[in-house]
Amino acid sequence: MCKLLSQYRAVARDLKVDAVAIVPGPNFTRLFGAEFHSHERPLVVFIPAEGDAAAIVPNLELRSFDLIGFEGEVFDWRDQDGYQHAFEALASQLPLSSLAVEGQIMRVFVHHAIAAAWPGLRIVDAEKQISGLRIIKSESEVSLLADAIHISERAMDHTISKVRVGMTETEIQGLLTQALFANGADAHAFGPIVAAGDNSAMPHAHARSDYRVQAGDALLLDFGARKDGFCADITRTFFVGHVDDASAEVYDAVYRANLRGHEVTKAGVTCHEVDDAVIGVLEASPFADRIRTKTGHGLGRDVHEAPYIMRGNHQVLEAGMVFTNEPGLYQIGEFGVRIEDDILVTDNGCRSLTQFPKELTVIGT
Amino acid sequence: MCKLLSQYRAVARDLKVDAVAIVPGPNFTRLFGAEFHSHERPLVVFIPAEGDAAAIVPNLELRSFDLIGFEGEVFDWRDQDGYQHAFEALASQLPLSSLAVEGQIMRVFVHHAIAAAWPGLRIVDAEKQISGLRIIKSESEVSLLADAIHISERAMDHTISKVRVGMTETEIQGLLTQALFANGADAHAFGPIVAAGDNSAMPHAHARSDYRVQAGDALLLDFGARKDGFCADITRTFFVGHVDDASAEVYDAVYRANLRGHEVTKAGVTCHEVDDAVIGVLEASPFADRIRTKTGHGLGRDVHEAPYIMRGNHQVLEAGMVFTNEPGLYQIGEFGVRIEDDILVTDNGCRSLTQFPKELTVIGT
Repeated sequence: MCKLLSQYRAVARDLKVDAVAIVPGPNFTRLFGAEFHSHERPLVVFIPAEGDAAAIVPNLELRSFDLIGFEGEVFDWRDQDGYQHAFEALASQLPLSSLAVEGQIMRVFVHHAIAAAWPGLRIVDAEKQISGLRIIKSESEVSLLADAIHISERAMDHTISKVRVGMTETEIQGLLTQALFANGADAHAFGPIVAAGDNSAMPHAHARSDYRVQAGDALLLDFGARKDGFCADITRTFFVGHVDDASAEVYDAVYRANLRGHEVTKAGVTCHEVDDAVIGVLEASPFADRIRTKTGHGLGRDVHEAPYIMRGNHQVLEAGMVFTNEPGLYQIGEFGVRIEDDILVTDNGCRSLTQFPKELTVIGT
Repeated sequence: MCKLLSQYRAVARDLKVDAVAIVPGPNFTRLFGAEFHSHERPLVVFIPAEGDAAAIVPNLELRSFDLIGFEGEVFDWRDQDGYQHAFEALASQLPLSSLAVEGQIMRVFVHHAIAAAWPGLRIVDAEKQISGLRIIKSESEVSLLADAIHISERAMDHTISKVRVGMTETEIQGLLTQALFANGADAHAFGPIVAAGDNSAMPHAHARSDYRVQAGDALLLDFGARKDGFCADITRTFFVGHVDDASAEVYDAVYRANLRGHEVTKAGVTCHEVDDAVIGVLEASPFADRIRTKTGHGLGRDVHEAPYIMRGNHQVLEAGMVFTNEPGLYQIGEFGVRIEDDILVTDNGCRSLTQFPKELTVIGT
C-alpha cells in the first residue's frame, strides 16, 4: 500500500495541489484491496503531497476499515451526530488550500462537506490523473479481467443455445443473467442490454417484456460479468432464424471495422488513430449515416474508464492498456449491429481477451 | 409525467431556488419511468420553478430519451466534442442564479460543468427535499417492493437448506446469488453480506474465501433483490449446527428489539421515538456495549433513503413510508446478530413486508 500511496502523492505534486481525496470506488479498491459502499455515509481518504494520510470513516465501518491496514489518523463519526464535525476536526489538523478529487466518483454531498470544512478550498476535478493510475494493467489484473470475460462468454454461449423465436427480450435477459451467475459472476458489470429488432438500434436499449423475437430479427446482447473487482464488457449481435442479405451486408461492415481495430492497435498508436481507422471502415461503407458511437473505452475495475478510443483523443496507447473495440451501425426504427471485444495493447500489436466467435451467426434454429 | 414534474417545480419554489436538476438515478426513474446509466456522460434534466424544462443528453442516448416523452428542449452533445458547450448553450437560454441538486446522486464532474456554465450559481444540496418526494409509497410501489422482498425470501430459504459446516463464506454467497437470480431478481440491490463467526460482528462484512463455517458459528445473511426498480433489504442471522446458551441470549435481545420496532411503529410516531424504543431494548440487555448501529433506513427505489430511523431525527412517520427495522449487536472478534425486516407504516400500526421467520433457527444439521 505504501508504494501505491506514493503514486497518489505524486499526482498531488504534479497537479500542484496540497492533497488528493479518494472515496470508495475503483481507485479506493485498487489502493486498499477492499470495497466499501458509502451510500449516505461519507468515507474519504486524504493523501497529502507531503505528510501522513488521514481518513473520515463512519463509526460502523471502523472495524472493516481497521483491516485494510491504513496507517494515518482516522476521524470517525456516528449517524446520530452527523459527519460535518469529523471533516472539521480533520481540517483543523490538515490545512489545505487545494484538493484533487475523483470527479466522476465523488458525489456532491461529500464535495459540499469538504468545501464547508475548508473555506476557500480550490477543489480540482482530477479524475483523469487519479483514475489514470489504473490505466496500465499488471499481469495479475489482466488475468482477473480475462476471468470475468470467460465467465461472460460461457453465459453468452449458454444463452444463445436456448433462444427461440417467440421469446420476449426479458425472458432472454433472465436466461442470460442466470447463466452469468451460474458461471461464477459476482455481479453484473452494468445493466445488461438484450435488444431485438428495432430495439437493437438503440446503443443503450432496455429489454422489453412485450416484444417477442421474430424470425429474421437481429438480437444484440451486450453485458459483462463483474468478478473479483474487474469488469467484462462484450457484445455480439446474432440473427434469429434466418438473416436477409441486406442485414448481412450491414453485419459485414461492422465486422470489418472491428477487425480493423485489432489490426491497427499497438503501443505507440493514439486513441484518435484507432478510432479513425475503425470508423473509417464504417464511413466507407454504404451505411455511414448509421454511425452513432465512438470505437470504445477503457475497461478494468470500472466498466467505463480511460483510455477513451475516440477521434480527438491523442493519448498514446501503451502496452498493458485494455479497451473495448465496439464499432456499431444503428438504423433507427430498423435494427442495429455491434460487435465488441475487450483487447489488451501489447508492444507489437494487441491480444483479444474476448475469444467468442464473431462471424455472422444465425441462432434459434 | 406532468403531474410529477409539478412536484419538482414545487420543491424549487419551496427552496426559493430557480430550478431543480435531476440526474439518472432513483428520482429520474420515478419521474420518467426509464433508467439511464450516465457513466462518464452527463445527462441532466433542469426543471425550473416557472417555465419549460430542458435537458442535456448524450447524442447516443437521444433515441432512448425520445421515448420517455420529455417535452422540453434537448441540448445534445457528442463524445468527440465534449459536453461543456451543451451546458453553455442551455445556460444562454435558461439564466439561473440558484439550483437545487441531488447531493447524494449527482457527481462532482457534473457539478463542475454546471458551475462553469452558470458563473456565480448557488448550488444547493436538496437531496432531502428532492428524494423526499419518494418517501410515501403508492400501493403499486408497495406491491413492487413486496415482489422484490419475496424473491429475496425464496432465495434465503433455498440457501439455508444447502448450508453445511465446512463451506466457505464465498461458497454460500455463490449459492445465495444463484438462488436470487433463479427466483427472478434483476440485480443485487447491494453487495450481499455473507458473514460467519467473527466476520458477522462487522455490520458491512465481506465474504471470505478462506474461512470455513464451523459448528456453533453465527451466519449472518444480509442481501436483497432489485426487481423492476425496487430494492429489498433483509437480514437473518442463523446458527450452524448448534447454538450455545450465551449466543441464544444475545439473539433473544435482538429479537425482542426487532419486535419492539414493529410494536411502536405507526403513523404519527417520530423516527427518533422508534429508534429510541428499539435501541432501548438493547440498552436494557446485558449487551449494551455491542450496539453499533441505528434501527434502520427507508427503502424503495434506493436501498438507503429517507426516513432514517435514528435518535435525533424528529421526522414524523406517515402511512406509506417503508423502512428497515434492523437492530443488531456486534461483539468485535466474536460474533454479531442482526434481524432485519422491511416494514410499511400504516395509520394504525405497521405491516411487515418481510415474512421470513425470525425465531432462533439452527441450520445445516
